[in-house]
Amino acid sequence: MKNIGLIIIGDEILSGKIDDLNLKWFSKYVLKENINLLECRFIRDTKEDICQAIDECLRNCEAIITTGGLGPTVDDVTKKVLSDYFDSPIEENLEVASFVESQYQKIGKSWDRSKNGYHLFPTKADFIKNPQGLAPGFLFKKEGKMVFSCPGVPREFQAMVDEEIMPIIREKFNLLSFASEYFHIRTYGVPEEDIFNHKHPDLWQRLSQFGKVSSLPTVTGVDISMTLLKDDQIAQKKKAIKEIIESIDLKNHVWHYGAESINELIVKKASEKNITIGFCESCTGGLSSSKITDIAGCSSVFMGSVIAYSNEVKKNILGVNEQTLKSFGAVSEQTALEMAQGGKEKLGVDICLSFTGIAGPGGGSLEKPVGTLGLGISSKFDTTSKLYQFSGNRLKLKERFCMIGLIKLLKEIEKY
Amino acid sequence: MKNIGLIIIGDEILSGKIDDLNLKWFSKYVLKENINLLECRFIRDTKEDICQAIDECLRNCEAIITTGGLGPTVDDVTKKVLSDYFDSPIEENLEVASFVESQYQKIGKSWDRSKNGYHLFPTKADFIKNPQGLAPGFLFKKEGKMVFSCPGVPREFQAMVDEEIMPIIREKFNLLSFASEYFHIRTYGVPEEDIFNHKHPDLWQRLSQFGKVSSLPTVTGVDISMTLLKDDQIAQKKKAIKEIIESIDLKNHVWHYGAESINELIVKKASEKNITIGFCESCTGGLSSSKITDIAGCSSVFMGSVIAYSNEVKKNILGVNEQTLKSFGAVSEQTALEMAQGGKEKLGVDICLSFTGIAGPGGGSLEKPVGTLGLGISSKFDTTSKLYQFSGNRLKLKERFCMIGLIKLLKEIEKY
Repeated sequence: MKNIGLIIIGDEILSGKIDDLNLKWFSKYVLKENINLLECRFIRDTKEDICQAIDECLRNCEAIITTGGLGPTVDDVTKKVLSDYFDSPIEENLEVASFVESQYQKIGKSWDRSKNGYHLFPTKADFIKNPQGLAPGFLFKKEGKMVFSCPGVPREFQAMVDEEIMPIIREKFNLLSFASEYFHIRTYGVPEEDIFNHKHPDLWQRLSQFGKVSSLPTVTGVDISMTLLKDDQIAQKKKAIKEIIESIDLKNHVWHYGAESINELIVKKASEKNITIGFCESCTGGLSSSKITDIAGCSSVFMGSVIAYSNEVKKNILGVNEQTLKSFGAVSEQTALEMAQGGKEKLGVDICLSFTGIAGPGGGSLEKPVGTLGLGISSKFDTTSKLYQFSGNRLKLKERFCMIGLIKLLKEIEKY
Repeated sequence: MKNIGLIIIGDEILSGKIDDLNLKWFSKYVLKENINLLECRFIRDTKEDICQAIDECLRNCEAIITTGGLGPTVDDVTKKVLSDYFDSPIEENLEVASFVESQYQKIGKSWDRSKNGYHLFPTKADFIKNPQGLAPGFLFKKEGKMVFSCPGVPREFQAMVDEEIMPIIREKFNLLSFASEYFHIRTYGVPEEDIFNHKHPDLWQRLSQFGKVSSLPTVTGVDISMTLLKDDQIAQKKKAIKEIIESIDLKNHVWHYGAESINELIVKKASEKNITIGFCESCTGGLSSSKITDIAGCSSVFMGSVIAYSNEVKKNILGVNEQTLKSFGAVSEQTALEMAQGGKEKLGVDICLSFTGIAGPGGGSLEKPVGTLGLGISSKFDTTSKLYQFSGNRLKLKERFCMIGLIKLLKEIEKY
């Protein structure tokens, strides 16, 4: 297997100003390739530090990707430093200039040579397009090894790696015949160690006969990801994997076999079945609605929501009874039920989901601690509600509340 | 300033199984010390990789902290590898054994020498207590430099660094009074290259006289971050920096001097002034409400929102006129105005903000392309609305719509 190194250049992350997103993304991205991310370094943007890192990394890696330092400000030194390192002059490059100009046009702006030095390009480097941004990337080659440079902006880095760099690496390293595909088993409500140590100690081994197994804990469960060789047996392998899962208790914790996100799935299935949806959110504060509206085309299924944070909004807009709030409290099965009922009617939707809970850090009690969620659902079949208990800080709890709600919504849509 | 290096040992992060939390925490933690985090490496847990990283890091750093590989499983090799590296035998250590035993007792469990090898300790290393866990840390010294080893579990790593390691580093390096502090200038609506190349070519240099300058593009603008030495001139330095900014056109693009997020600021200021807020969101789909409810204590200011995605919800819940929607369209100043007005009344809030726009990729027209936003605001002073135009993909546009709205809301709150 070929080794790859990632060098993240710049002060921002080492000095705590921003959090890393590029290692986070890349480490998951390369999983599906037959490549080993051998090391990742975060370094300062000085010539010495950059050259030393390239030197050292090249000893053990066949390819290096650097990110950062390609922008227009004085601390953007990567192009100059790498050109010196590879002993390359920097000159005007017409292909690059014309690409930069077209990228500016795409965002409705004009560019000329006085704006920045993007058209000045190392003569010994290959040009790497930046599909999502303005600063060009480049590739230096040395003794069969490759050093790519990308912008540090995560969106630009990701698009450049996925669309431009990986095809080059795959070809160079002959990763073609190894094409593989992910198969995801998405679970919720059961901890990783329970799945693999406790409840199903032989599951890892049983799955491994079909391909490489990874287990990725998520905010509400575990995604078991299998890397399957894309040969003519792949359909049978997927079927056999599903059969293993469906034969054990884990089947009750699977919400999906596949890579789609929960919000994608909901929009897709509701759309196929012509079902409209809406939410009444208290503790999740709009997160569920926001997730659904992240999906293009959601407007055919998502009508709207009421974010009923205060009791007044619960009463005045959703029609929750004052007496219900007084007798059972805002966080209760009864309130969740009336919210879902009221929301279905007021929003005029087929299915309405309601969330009322305690995300903390304050507001908990002995009886209803932080992490309590009342979840209601109202559809043509029934209106029901239930209390759940989760752990985590405020943001984790919002995510967990939201995720369990969306899983229930998906299951309700599947009933239609 | 002394250099420090962080070496994160283990496969979990490089293979995308878990996200890093230790660099994330440590990079912010050391800010307040007069120490430079020179580099951070994520490496695999082989003897060669660990030894090479220590070798290389020791050249430029006065101290190194490693995390990971101290646990009881077969892939926990750090103690063995570092003992070999520093040519140290490993023997039973009674002080360590007794500490480990007491840590087990604290969590209600018993420990003896058969359980794991925690009592076996490199004879040439100093023992570093693990205040939050079981595996002991250690310190090797070599030619005035220090190599600390901590567990990888974030909670244990943080406690060990804060309570045990930093006091040693401070004493050794005489870090008494040189702490620095950040000063952030948060801008919106003007691109990075326009600030520093085009409009104010001498700004970077003018700011640099007070400390190190960094420029961080955000989703809607640029954060200019300055690292200031915390001496008795710091108040004057901040004042002088502000005066520079306020003397140039950039002042109209500053939404805050400081580190708080926009949602934190809104909740804090609205709370101080006893103002209640709510939103009517169409294109942002709940994102603004979700951001506000990320902040603990928001319930004293945030009453709720109506996510009016469909025209029916705009009419039926917010009372937008059918005629307005027909004549001007859902994305218009007029609809934004009526949404803000209706929302203020229905939600019973002091200030209501409304968003109606086109996040794409579909739904745009020549007259109103993707990226058009109608933003309305209703308060005791007035009800106004305005059309904006942004670029980006769907998720970026949601973020940009939301951010410009929250900045306008902050300015409205400041009027009270």
